[in-house]
Amino acid sequence: MVNVGILGATGMVGQRFIQLLEDHPKFEITALTASARSAGKKYQDAVTWHMDTPIPEAVKDTVVVDTDPSQVKDVEIVFSALPAENALIAEPKFAEAGMKVASNASAMRMEPDVPLVIPEVNPEHLDLIETQQKNRGWDGFIVTNPNCSTIALVLTLKPIYDQYDINRVYVSTMQAVSGAGYNGVPSMAMLDNLVPFIGGEEEKMEEETLYLLGDFDGDNVEPATFGVSTSCHRVPVVDGHTEAVFMEMDEEFDLEDIKKSLQNFQALPQKLNLFSAPEHPVIVREEDNRPQPRMDRMMGKGMTVTVGRLRQDATFPQSLKYVLLGHNTVRGAAGASILNAELIAEIM
Amino acid sequence: MVNVGILGATGMVGQRFIQLLEDHPKFEITALTASARSAGKKYQDAVTWHMDTPIPEAVKDTVVVDTDPSQVKDVEIVFSALPAENALIAEPKFAEAGMKVASNASAMRMEPDVPLVIPEVNPEHLDLIETQQKNRGWDGFIVTNPNCSTIALVLTLKPIYDQYDINRVYVSTMQAVSGAGYNGVPSMAMLDNLVPFIGGEEEKMEEETLYLLGDFDGDNVEPATFGVSTSCHRVPVVDGHTEAVFMEMDEEFDLEDIKKSLQNFQALPQKLNLFSAPEHPVIVREEDNRPQPRMDRMMGKGMTVTVGRLRQDATFPQSLKYVLLGHNTVRGAAGASILNAELIAEIM
Amino acid sequence: MVNVGILGATGMVGQRFIQLLEDHPKFEITALTASARSAGKKYQDAVTWHMDTPIPEAVKDTVVVDTDPSQVKDVEIVFSALPAENALIAEPKFAEAGMKVASNASAMRMEPDVPLVIPEVNPEHLDLIETQQKNRGWDGFIVTNPNCSTIALVLTLKPIYDQYDINRVYVSTMQAVSGAGYNGVPSMAMLDNLVPFIGGEEEKMEEETLYLLGDFDGDNVEPATFGVSTSCHRVPVVDGHTEAVFMEMDEEFDLEDIKKSLQNFQALPQKLNLFSAPEHPVIVREEDNRPQPRMDRMMGKGMTVTVGRLRQDATFPQSLKYVLLGHNTVRGAAGASILNAELIAEIM
Amino acid sequence: MVNVGILGATGMVGQRFIQLLEDHPKFEITALTASARSAGKKYQDAVTWHMDTPIPEAVKDTVVVDTDPSQVKDVEIVFSALPAENALIAEPKFAEAGMKVASNASAMRMEPDVPLVIPEVNPEHLDLIETQQKNRGWDGFIVTNPNCSTIALVLTLKPIYDQYDINRVYVSTMQAVSGAGYNGVPSMAMLDNLVPFIGGEEEKMEEETLYLLGDFDGDNVEPATFGVSTSCHRVPVVDGHTEAVFMEMDEEFDLEDIKKSLQNFQALPQKLNLFSAPEHPVIVREEDNRPQPRMDRMMGKGMTVTVGRLRQDATFPQSLKYVLLGHNTVRGAAGASILNAELIAEIM
Repeated sequence: MVNVGILGATGMVGQRFIQLLEDHPKFEITALTASARSAGKKYQDAVTWHMDTPIPEAVKDTVVVDTDPSQVKDVEIVFSALPAENALIAEPKFAEAGMKVASNASAMRMEPDVPLVIPEVNPEHLDLIETQQKNRGWDGFIVTNPNCSTIALVLTLKPIYDQYDINRVYVSTMQAVSGAGYNGVPSMAMLDNLVPFIGGEEEKMEEETLYLLGDFDGDNVEPATFGVSTSCHRVPVVDGHTEAVFMEMDEEFDLEDIKKSLQNFQALPQKLNLFSAPEHPVIVREEDNRPQPRMDRMMGKGMTVTVGRLRQDATFPQSLKYVLLGHNTVRGAAGASILNAELIAEIM
Repeated sequence: MVNVGILGATGMVGQRFIQLLEDHPKFEITALTASARSAGKKYQDAVTWHMDTPIPEAVKDTVVVDTDPSQVKDVEIVFSALPAENALIAEPKFAEAGMKVASNASAMRMEPDVPLVIPEVNPEHLDLIETQQKNRGWDGFIVTNPNCSTIALVLTLKPIYDQYDINRVYVSTMQAVSGAGYNGVPSMAMLDNLVPFIGGEEEKMEEETLYLLGDFDGDNVEPATFGVSTSCHRVPVVDGHTEAVFMEMDEEFDLEDIKKSLQNFQALPQKLNLFSAPEHPVIVREEDNRPQPRMDRMMGKGMTVTVGRLRQDATFPQSLKYVLLGHNTVRGAAGASILNAELIAEIM
Repeated sequence: MVNVGILGATGMVGQRFIQLLEDHPKFEITALTASARSAGKKYQDAVTWHMDTPIPEAVKDTVVVDTDPSQVKDVEIVFSALPAENALIAEPKFAEAGMKVASNASAMRMEPDVPLVIPEVNPEHLDLIETQQKNRGWDGFIVTNPNCSTIALVLTLKPIYDQYDINRVYVSTMQAVSGAGYNGVPSMAMLDNLVPFIGGEEEKMEEETLYLLGDFDGDNVEPATFGVSTSCHRVPVVDGHTEAVFMEMDEEFDLEDIKKSLQNFQALPQKLNLFSAPEHPVIVREEDNRPQPRMDRMMGKGMTVTVGRLRQDATFPQSLKYVLLGHNTVRGAAGASILNAELIAEIM
Repeated sequence: MVNVGILGATGMVGQRFIQLLEDHPKFEITALTASARSAGKKYQDAVTWHMDTPIPEAVKDTVVVDTDPSQVKDVEIVFSALPAENALIAEPKFAEAGMKVASNASAMRMEPDVPLVIPEVNPEHLDLIETQQKNRGWDGFIVTNPNCSTIALVLTLKPIYDQYDINRVYVSTMQAVSGAGYNGVPSMAMLDNLVPFIGGEEEKMEEETLYLLGDFDGDNVEPATFGVSTSCHRVPVVDGHTEAVFMEMDEEFDLEDIKKSLQNFQALPQKLNLFSAPEHPVIVREEDNRPQPRMDRMMGKGMTVTVGRLRQDATFPQSLKYVLLGHNTVRGAAGASILNAELIAEIM
């Protein structure tokens, strides 16, 4: 078993890390960090637990420590659920101290020597680790995963982009509230209402998508060059981001062909049979009224993206439309970091 | 006062007609029709009233009659809140019997001699009435208004299209449940969930939009020719359709200029000072997080469409994005028919 | 016109005061106070407006001042929408400075010389003002209204208690989120969920109810002595508190008699024809499935409490059950203070 | 393995039976019945699946048959998820044909020779089966479980009633929508709203509770005689009924003692280690704000009732209050019938 720690263990994403790692065959949680207010307390006393399964017995009495590498002993991998501003300061310290940091935070994602990875999409970007360690003189390193709404989108773009030239993608999201933290979205904003804005989300989606699908020469990532334009909205859903995708191709395409590409998409994590890798990263539903958050978000234990309503514009045959759904705190956050760590543990 | 009747008076849209007409200065409700099950009952006994204001005293004791022109005496205008399949049969009978039918139903919208009108957008299409009466030998006539989500969209497209060539429009909707009728959408589908499909909605939006903005030579409507592609979704909101719009122009444009065009948009109903015409058909909000259904849907007594988040893609300056919100059962249904009738009463 | 001010004008209840006073025939808002952060700004720049009608033109440009009597000139009445801890300090200063304070805060409610009043229930408690002014040497005074859930309950208890001896009352509430302020209840707590606890609410309901229905000898209030036991719960409703009431009488009673007492209940505010007094403080619905928050909360412009499901236990004929609904931020907060002020302006 | 069938397999409760039985160690589904419309189709084509896990592979291709015993071969136990009116006719036929019917329907619950059982509460009532078979000349028999809201209540009453004399119980429920079937409650009724009425629910709770806690002499059940009065309300929650309980005892009691009785409550199903029996039928939470539906309904795989807010009235020490939560379609419906069948399979 590999000893792992969780940075920012009391927040919503931190709790999700703990829940997902409960029965992990390779990773064992031996350290939990949080802010000074929680340090020194048992985890069960420090946390207001919001998951729908009980706090795992194994961590109930674990004493929470400060988010400081000197407090985290004998740990090989740390998962970071820190807020971006804290991550910016803390994550480099853990890497410097020799730990492998699998981060869900946005702070370091766009650093040119920090890999931003979805294991099914661009595992080769992990080669940047060597550059990173050389550049920074670290024994450890930082690996990041993209933003929740980006991950779900790019998992569906990848098998299409492998076959067709994409000219332009428009995405309108309907995002769940859990991503904003327990207190992030007031109920006054979500009862008989929605909010057509999520700070920074559109910029992240537009930048990260092109980066993930970019060319990598071993040293640098050259972002893809098609147009990506997003409009992000918060809706009264607990978990599961829904995204309506409009895509213009450079040429006509075959709808059945695209459906097969999505349905059959498998990649390195599936080949390596990684514990958190779903058999199918993407599944396609034929029913008119799917995907739906409550019914589809837990497909593949929350790691599968469900696509539905695949269709072509009658009057513009180069245009593809579909709706996708991904679990924002599993595949889009904690599960993404864990899958990154599983891949690293396997291949490095 | 002009005597008016309401066809299908017990349903959700029928109730909205009654609520909106309560203090109308020119129209007085003198007839209410419904299915055979309700005929013969007092309105208050026939209806399960769902509005948030009480049943108007003036109609409480009105005896409901069959939806049959022989039962509707001394009425000049009838508002149709009938389901499409009933409208197809009943509306022509009322027109034949000499009544002016202002219909919210979709049944007759695409008949080439039936005007499909938004008073601020294409009042000149009313000239089709003459053709219609001649073609069909009717003393009365039928005028229709578009689908709820189309109306809100086209009110924002009109002032832009008057100035710029539009190349392509992508619209992703987040629609309220009230449009589907009281029993239309189960709560199991709307708690911690959304449904990415509304039967027939995308087709209506795509066809009607081009028709409304088409050229009219006095006899025929030649639809506009830019691309319109929609994806329609039901979300847990009672009233108020939100739509995320992505637009590609044929040329670069000035964002401030477009904002002013929207904000200053006024048309015939405003000039004629029609009772239900809002001072501003469109208002533009500057805040990041607006429009929101619960707070903005009643602007202009439900007849104003609120636009927010007007922005340009950094990397594609011919691209415009915004979010709009319109009240689906006021501006998008009952209020639309009433404004049509007010315009007709004024100019014909 | 009487000049009035609003203390804590930027919060949810403060906004409701402004909305309700927009067209008031006797009160004109001439002062708005808020925390230091807002002081010096125009109201429209200081507030994040959450009402469903626009900010009244008359206050848009009013400059917000500190909550300090020296900043509030030429004002006769101030309405307090302050949080309890601020009210405790600020309200006495305004009374000392000669102003009449109509407070919605809980801070001073249980002071023996401060009247806690519902105008339809215990207007005679206003006689305490004289004692208060004498005790404290103030030219002004403080009058308070009860907690939102208490007001709705006691308006229905009063006409029953006037006729029958009540032995015990059990009340289970289903309360709206608006009472907790815009950020008070997270959406994570209210989507597919409810919370069976509201801090301090049960204690307030149990104490205030007996106080309001107590005996008053001109100097002291002797609380009523029947049992009141409450269980308070937060549910996903924006506005409108629903309460299930179980009542044990000392004797058998006639259900029709109680229905008439509730329906016919009228009191001093109705006799004086006060502007905010509803014609009926309580209405009784016969339908099985009423009251419902969205449909009934605005009865009597939000000042009427709706009662439904009046019934007697088959096996225990001294037991009465019903469900009531009252608008928590109108009748239960801002409207309550305004009605208190209208009564004072009329009789003092 | 015991072959089992599900009557009414396409509805919400039918689907829950299938989900819960997916990995059952003793029961194997070999027959699925539904209405004539579905008969002859594969299950996956007949059903609109609404669970949050996929349709089990084992039943996907099972051909649905009419709800008629002649169509159901080699089956020992049938679980009935039929509507009451269908159950009344169909269930006796299956019993007559020699099958053991474990029914969730209300139709036969109050027949004097049909056991109404919660295995932890009154397993001895199963002795009525002998009487039933003798009376009716059946080889099979019918066993029923109570209404969803009754089960959760009585599981908490039982350990208290074993120790103390209860005088009167008042219960106010906040019930989830899933119990009414997928189309049972419109979203118009559950967005920013609640409905204070559920047809027949109060009568069932009041009657069944006394029956379950009654005396049984081997032939007849003599209902308990304390007062039970309920008020039932539908709230916007998908799964999980919350109930606020007020209880008057005949004497003073010790709160800690009651807490222990609830927490330590174990009965026959726990002793027999039945597969669906939770280790703890009731758990007690100490936090102020629990139980909450989304977080607590799946305790004990949905078979545990969570109690919180245990408290005593300050002024009336014979009075006990608490809030309970039970999963309405697991412990309150399909899981209840399955546990009944497991008990029967074990002891008969």
